[in-house]
Amino acid sequence: MPFVMLDELKQFEPVPGFRGRFVHSDHMTLADWTITAGAALPVHAHPHEQITRVLAGEFAFTLNGETRSMGPGAVVVIPPNATHTGKAITNCRVIDTFYPVREDYRDKTAHSTR
Amino acid sequence: MPFVMLDELKQFEPVPGFRGRFVHSDHMTLADWTITAGAALPVHAHPHEQITRVLAGEFAFTLNGETRSMGPGAVVVIPPNATHTGKAITNCRVIDTFYPVREDYRDKTAHSTR
Repeated sequence: MPFVMLDELKQFEPVPGFRGRFVHSDHMTLADWTITAGAALPVHAHPHEQITRVLAGEFAFTLNGETRSMGPGAVVVIPPNATHTGKAITNCRVIDTFYPVREDYRDKTAHSTR
Repeated sequence: MPFVMLDELKQFEPVPGFRGRFVHSDHMTLADWTITAGAALPVHAHPHEQITRVLAGEFAFTLNGETRSMGPGAVVVIPPNATHTGKAITNCRVIDTFYPVREDYRDKTAHSTR
């Protein structure tokens, strides 16, 4: 079904404090995150392109060693295999989009159009 | 530069009442829309996959002849070449993600990481 209400999807918490809901098309994954103040990502990299857009709150994002404070309306484009990490300074809402699909998140979500 | 502030990008209004800002990665385009109440899209289709997420307001979206009222937290996944249209019932904020890149929007935006 092409129409989805995010609130009706189960949340998955791959990292403590990062609770996400996921919608997949054939080539992209949209991840909708609710992040608790103080929660931090491990340093990581993945072969997927990623575009991150902060909706609310303040998130300190580090890409290839450069850290920026990201607030509402801030976007970062993460190339494939680029090392990145981040920490929620306040409670945050963040949207990530990935290409290709995050297969590791596919079985965590109630919804896929594939 | 990987970090972008949407407010610093110029807006492009491809359809009256649809003012967008665009960020491109190698394979995706993120479109951030501010839409005026009453503005309507023509019926159209494109070869790109699209995931649309409503941030604020109420948007009546029609995909393959099925219309849904989409509010905050609603998502729709649009397959390649699917006919779609829509109308803003109230002022709206909406995010679209496209695969592959919307080359027709690339020269309209001040930012591209490509």
